Amino acid sequence: MNYRHILLMDGPDHKGLIYQVTRVLFEHNQNIIRNNEYVSPSGYFFMRTEFEGEADASQLLEVLRRELPEGINLRLNPKKKKDIVLLVTKEHHCLGELLIRYAFDELDATIQAVISNYNVLQPLVSKFGIPFHYISHEHKTRPEHEEAILRTLDIYQPEYLVLAKYMRVLTADFVQHFPDRIVNIHHSFLPAFIGANPYRQAYERGVKIIGATAHFVNNNLDEGPIIAQDVKSVDHRQTATDMATLGRDTEKQVLSKALKLVFNDRVFIHHNRTIIL
Amino acid sequence: MNYRHILLMDGPDHKGLIYQVTRVLFEHNQNIIRNNEYVSPSGYFFMRTEFEGEADASQLLEVLRRELPEGINLRLNPKKKKDIVLLVTKEHHCLGELLIRYAFDELDATIQAVISNYNVLQPLVSKFGIPFHYISHEHKTRPEHEEAILRTLDIYQPEYLVLAKYMRVLTADFVQHFPDRIVNIHHSFLPAFIGANPYRQAYERGVKIIGATAHFVNNNLDEGPIIAQDVKSVDHRQTATDMATLGRDTEKQVLSKALKLVFNDRVFIHHNRTIIL
Amino acid sequence: MNYRHILLMDGPDHKGLIYQVTRVLFEHNQNIIRNNEYVSPSGYFFMRTEFEGEADASQLLEVLRRELPEGINLRLNPKKKKDIVLLVTKEHHCLGELLIRYAFDELDATIQAVISNYNVLQPLVSKFGIPFHYISHEHKTRPEHEEAILRTLDIYQPEYLVLAKYMRVLTADFVQHFPDRIVNIHHSFLPAFIGANPYRQAYERGVKIIGATAHFVNNNLDEGPIIAQDVKSVDHRQTATDMATLGRDTEKQVLSKALKLVFNDRVFIHHNRTIIL
Amino acid sequence: MNYRHILLMDGPDHKGLIYQVTRVLFEHNQNIIRNNEYVSPSGYFFMRTEFEGEADASQLLEVLRRELPEGINLRLNPKKKKDIVLLVTKEHHCLGELLIRYAFDELDATIQAVISNYNVLQPLVSKFGIPFHYISHEHKTRPEHEEAILRTLDIYQPEYLVLAKYMRVLTADFVQHFPDRIVNIHHSFLPAFIGANPYRQAYERGVKIIGATAHFVNNNLDEGPIIAQDVKSVDHRQTATDMATLGRDTEKQVLSKALKLVFNDRVFIHHNRTIIL
Repeated sequence: MNYRHILLMDGPDHKGLIYQVTRVLFEHNQNIIRNNEYVSPSGYFFMRTEFEGEADASQLLEVLRRELPEGINLRLNPKKKKDIVLLVTKEHHCLGELLIRYAFDELDATIQAVISNYNVLQPLVSKFGIPFHYISHEHKTRPEHEEAILRTLDIYQPEYLVLAKYMRVLTADFVQHFPDRIVNIHHSFLPAFIGANPYRQAYERGVKIIGATAHFVNNNLDEGPIIAQDVKSVDHRQTATDMATLGRDTEKQVLSKALKLVFNDRVFIHHNRTIIL
Repeated sequence: MNYRHILLMDGPDHKGLIYQVTRVLFEHNQNIIRNNEYVSPSGYFFMRTEFEGEADASQLLEVLRRELPEGINLRLNPKKKKDIVLLVTKEHHCLGELLIRYAFDELDATIQAVISNYNVLQPLVSKFGIPFHYISHEHKTRPEHEEAILRTLDIYQPEYLVLAKYMRVLTADFVQHFPDRIVNIHHSFLPAFIGANPYRQAYERGVKIIGATAHFVNNNLDEGPIIAQDVKSVDHRQTATDMATLGRDTEKQVLSKALKLVFNDRVFIHHNRTIIL
Repeated sequence: MNYRHILLMDGPDHKGLIYQVTRVLFEHNQNIIRNNEYVSPSGYFFMRTEFEGEADASQLLEVLRRELPEGINLRLNPKKKKDIVLLVTKEHHCLGELLIRYAFDELDATIQAVISNYNVLQPLVSKFGIPFHYISHEHKTRPEHEEAILRTLDIYQPEYLVLAKYMRVLTADFVQHFPDRIVNIHHSFLPAFIGANPYRQAYERGVKIIGATAHFVNNNLDEGPIIAQDVKSVDHRQTATDMATLGRDTEKQVLSKALKLVFNDRVFIHHNRTIIL
Repeated sequence: MNYRHILLMDGPDHKGLIYQVTRVLFEHNQNIIRNNEYVSPSGYFFMRTEFEGEADASQLLEVLRRELPEGINLRLNPKKKKDIVLLVTKEHHCLGELLIRYAFDELDATIQAVISNYNVLQPLVSKFGIPFHYISHEHKTRPEHEEAILRTLDIYQPEYLVLAKYMRVLTADFVQHFPDRIVNIHHSFLPAFIGANPYRQAYERGVKIIGATAHFVNNNLDEGPIIAQDVKSVDHRQTATDMATLGRDTEKQVLSKALKLVFNDRVFIHHNRTIIL
């Protein structure tokens, strides 16, 4: 039987980095299944190495730390499904997409629970036998509400949070509990529209393209590293409502695509950009 | 032999508008080749009617004015190529695309001349035997420079100006000489980036999509009614330079598409949106 | 309260057709909400007119028949959801997409039942409280199997059948019970691949694009009028399995798009082509 | 001053291949700028390594041959523009695109000459000061015609031939003079159409997507390894002529994209597929 691992490595480029890593794997009878690297124009190095061998490779991390230069970040993950919790509000489109994929084992993740500040989506979630936690924000301060969510998350200890149309802004305090581990989806347009009812604004501006962006959440919402984007063409015949419908379809497709990349350990974050190997 | 005309009509919707127009054409032995209309959710009516007949239809405009309710805008154009002048600066990609299409009669327009504030593109233009006017902006105030351009345009009396990467902002004074008759192309991104070197900004933000927008120019630059947009996918491997190259390809394709629509009288402008019939 | 109807009309073009129809609607106090027509280069006329009025318009069909020339086909539908039955085999992706849309009233149709020649998808369907009929093809001749399906369909009298990855060929006898009323989805490629395991073939051929086609079913399978198509880009890194996954995503998106058009009475069929107004 | 080289390597996968190559480069003070590899599911290994160093690396090929296992194919190219000859017939769209790119040094290649079996495009080519060879096929057998072309090609010794809408089938005899060194562009459709006037067939079939495929030419025309593909959406309103116009735009874009990949030594061919690193 074979163990499969994914090694993620990034840091300032040095001559021979690939050589040193591949030598260690070679000497430990690990066979490289897939190896991708990228060096940024500024000389920063990224490598994702998927390898397998008969021996458990977990101790290799130590060996590599010794062999590699200072300042190289290393992560070694066994290849497995991620544990995730979904946060939602009232919209079903992204949630429904993820539930169906999950029900047929296409998500590369285990949905441990769904948390919502409304109970609208409870019936859908219950169809799939997944715990649904209704944590209303009413009569609570934002910190109190986030505190309640955090207590629930403590039960599950998820590796990633997915904001599948969770319509509340998360505080920096909350976000820092899950650094680079929260994925959000939101609509996006050419040009961008700020504020309420963006589809109405896009309609009134007569845009010919609407889209969606999946990104990690950092302290300034909607500004985290972009993971995936896609667009659809529209024209004057689409009403603001039509555009919102089409936008939702795009959102669920882009979120699914982004999660596939994240859950397969293919995404690096560097200076607010993603490198996808 | 047949005359072919295009009737463009817009105004507040009234019951029977289509009926009245089609009756007039019917009674004047004009046959409708293609008829498209659109009523906006706010009840504003747009119709493009392409028709042909043995009799010259130019006098039909008067008849229609009499028959139709107050406040309906009517334009009646014989189907023919538009006369245009191109304004460029130093970039060749859009100009080259238009020149090749023009050389093989694919532009639905006659390029009367090319005007530039640099002489960089003169050799390319001269290959195609088109007048090139080098009107430098140096040692001139903006009004003086625009005045010089206007004097040259007076020679040609173009129906449309095409800004094929003309990198100077036009004043409201200049624009008002060509209401809804100036088409511009510019890059666009998700999210949008303002200011210098947008491709560098897009690169640093790690966008996955870059695009281009063709639009009419009104008083606030890059904010006029959008005619066409398209995007290309990018990833971390593209440098800012690669993205600029891909962006230029998108720009020339989007500009060509937009001009085809404009030159075929298919574009209405209403409240800063385009309706394309 | 207002009645809304959709008039579908096609036939050889005559001067004044639009005029005559719009006059009738005008005289019967029906207001045109949306009117689209198209005349093919061969002179065949298509028009879709969506209109509303305070009076029920059902008797207008007779009036129009009298007023219009011979040989014009007319259909007058009240604007309402279509009744449909889904046929599936073992794959869940299209079914899941349609069930979620249906559960949130986004399908423009009522799913009366799901019929399958396997019982694999029964658990998914039952989550949504929709009748599931397991009609195995085993120990049955093809005519016997189709006969059994027809008996079940008789219970529901659906307006449309949707083959949401139904993997058996339907006989001409079966198809003729539902002329232009069966919609199918299947993968498609550049170039096309015939026979078993097309994704394996596409992989081995190294295609860079895979796609899906939604079409009406007529007597020769996969050759009926095309309603919608879309594609996704792939490269050498995708395995045949990855390509099949991506293909399934495309299939469900294209099928949903096609059904939206069909269920809104926007699709005409003429000489094995669709005209979508 | 630095030398830059591109090493292309493929063969059956062995543990430690990357290690051995990177060690050699490391020991010869060559710095890896970009390294990409891919191992096929069947265990075949591909690697493209772009590296630079102060010493000329040309002798490294010998070293690598000694160090690496039997049966590994190695190519070592200095990074430089390719010499190419274009073959055309009467259509200008791909030729025009390539000439404009070439004129502004965007082609990564030097166009040594253009050969055509008609003289229609001579005026366009001459605008760019490139030799144009009119080699009519009239009154010649196919072998005689190809013989004449080969004699002309002998003058230039091009690294690649680009069939920029060259509308004659090349014999196996001709093709074998340029193994994996001829790039062709042709339209493609969903479904595929064989025989004359494919756009007419596509129109009559009512396809919603038309596309183009760039591929290497091997003995069976239009069946060589695919390099790039793209599509555009169409609908019933496009005539066969409109579709042909849109198809030509797609062809020139896809050909340009494919050539960029080929001329940058990014394309491997294996079992009639391309691997693009």
